[in-house]
Amino acid sequence: LPLLRADLALIGFGHVGKRFARLLDEQSASLASGYGLSCRIVATATKRHGCEAGGKPCADAFEAIDYLASSNADLRVVVETTTLDIERGEPAAAHVRAAIAAGCHVVTANKGPVAFAYDTLHAAATAAGVSFRFEGAVMDGVPVFNLVRETLPCVRVTGFEGVVNATTNHILTEMERGASFATALAKMQADGVAEADPSLDVLGWDAAAKTAALANVLMGARITPHDVKRTGITEQTGKRAREAMTRGRRIKLVASARKAADGSLSARVEPRELPAEDLLAGLDGSANALILDTDLLDRIAICQLSGSLTQTAYALLSDLVSIARSHRP
Amino acid sequence: LPLLRADLALIGFGHVGKRFARLLDEQSASLASGYGLSCRIVATATKRHGCEAGGKPCADAFEAIDYLASSNADLRVVVETTTLDIERGEPAAAHVRAAIAAGCHVVTANKGPVAFAYDTLHAAATAAGVSFRFEGAVMDGVPVFNLVRETLPCVRVTGFEGVVNATTNHILTEMERGASFATALAKMQADGVAEADPSLDVLGWDAAAKTAALANVLMGARITPHDVKRTGITEQTGKRAREAMTRGRRIKLVASARKAADGSLSARVEPRELPAEDLLAGLDGSANALILDTDLLDRIAICQLSGSLTQTAYALLSDLVSIARSHRP
Repeated sequence: LPLLRADLALIGFGHVGKRFARLLDEQSASLASGYGLSCRIVATATKRHGCEAGGKPCADAFEAIDYLASSNADLRVVVETTTLDIERGEPAAAHVRAAIAAGCHVVTANKGPVAFAYDTLHAAATAAGVSFRFEGAVMDGVPVFNLVRETLPCVRVTGFEGVVNATTNHILTEMERGASFATALAKMQADGVAEADPSLDVLGWDAAAKTAALANVLMGARITPHDVKRTGITEQTGKRAREAMTRGRRIKLVASARKAADGSLSARVEPRELPAEDLLAGLDGSANALILDTDLLDRIAICQLSGSLTQTAYALLSDLVSIARSHRP
Repeated sequence: LPLLRADLALIGFGHVGKRFARLLDEQSASLASGYGLSCRIVATATKRHGCEAGGKPCADAFEAIDYLASSNADLRVVVETTTLDIERGEPAAAHVRAAIAAGCHVVTANKGPVAFAYDTLHAAATAAGVSFRFEGAVMDGVPVFNLVRETLPCVRVTGFEGVVNATTNHILTEMERGASFATALAKMQADGVAEADPSLDVLGWDAAAKTAALANVLMGARITPHDVKRTGITEQTGKRAREAMTRGRRIKLVASARKAADGSLSARVEPRELPAEDLLAGLDGSANALILDTDLLDRIAICQLSGSLTQTAYALLSDLVSIARSHRP
């Protein structure tokens, strides 16, 4: 394979962005030999620790994107890893829009753009002849969007249900073992699983954003996280979970969407009691899984049996390779 | 997308081949609009009901392949669906070799070629500039090989374990409920799940062929089904399964492979007792699943929650689209 040179701008450079940069380095030999891809980070932009492009300071993410756009590399890719804003998905969506407008491909691990504006961003990317990829938005690097796009041609997704938030799944598992909600949450925070502000997780917002992303991309919906009927988990959920266990059943925070016969879509996130033999019931701790209802393959599932920062960073890498494959000149 | 014309020769035209032909027809509009692909079956070859090419009788599969090779379509694809021969994987492997030698792409749902000769067939296909695809060899149309090839770049598979044979899983489930081996098997035969000669399934040969296929393709092994340490299921397994259930555990016929520190590979098929929370333990009836151990994504799993003839036929369709995508002029 002739070498394809990719220049990257990292918008957001926290844990995920830094792990991605190291992963690119660790995988440089196999990227070159396996996919003919050679990557170089030419700009980084952070909210609190400054921005730089071509080795010089710059004003903000948008200047970093402009700098990338002036590169003459074979591929120009904006890698967006800022944190989720659950009100409107900004400024991540603005970063994606700016990248597309500048003729750059976009890869993001942020759920915001795809949960709030998939439809318009996808259309803009198609019109500009660039790719907009977001594998990391759901289940880290375990393929969900790429699974459907690359390996399930002609298959129509008619619904889904999944356990897609690791923090609440951890907390539920701990509460089943007798811990109080507060203790379980504190343990997750001490272990670095839960954020300092865990409300996005425990109120179900993170799962709702993933539900919107999945419904928008896989089922052609045009919803936002605010359209998802949402119930989070509380101390009371723990009590229900312990009670369910005495009957051999489990409570999981299930994200789901389904199309009614009239074509309307209902999407929800809620604690749901499941029989022990349900695939989702068996997912402990950081395990996640997504069951897809389809026309040609009936029900299939993809599962992430444990999670880590490397897996989130890998999502960006897999999207990058996917872009390189489809834009090889 | 400019239309890509594909001519196909169906080698083997039993249940799977016929369902595939109907599926092509049912999906023709979405193949054209989604993938720019227009397919035509120009030859069929069967063992007992004759062969035909271009509307005229021909001698055998090899003549049907030769006829296809003379087509001036954009893609020439041999679709191999003969039944598994567990001794040597023939004549399926010979069909694949002949197709490659004639410059045709090959899609097969037969485990034989990839379980017995993946290495040489893959090399021959690469040298000839054609594709050799076999998604249907394991878990029907649920992506396993395409999953790794298309969506997991840079990921190294270091081992796997799975429940990959529906007949034995059905029989085990029935035996757990109290049925004898003979009764459970007879039920599977009456339901059309098990073959008239069920020995390939119950002796573990079908799972062993899938194990060899997975090890060869995903882990670079060069083994045949005869190199897989193999234990099938018997009346005695049912007794063990009922006994395990009293302790909340399940017995499943598990196919696995692992690389030792010295690089040697051990592959086995055996009834294995699993804790209830194991993903594989929860698979009832025709459900299958494969857990992959990987370097970058730790453990991930793909599950087929029910099986059908359509799913096997879909495997061929998905391979066909994958070939069209990679060979678009």
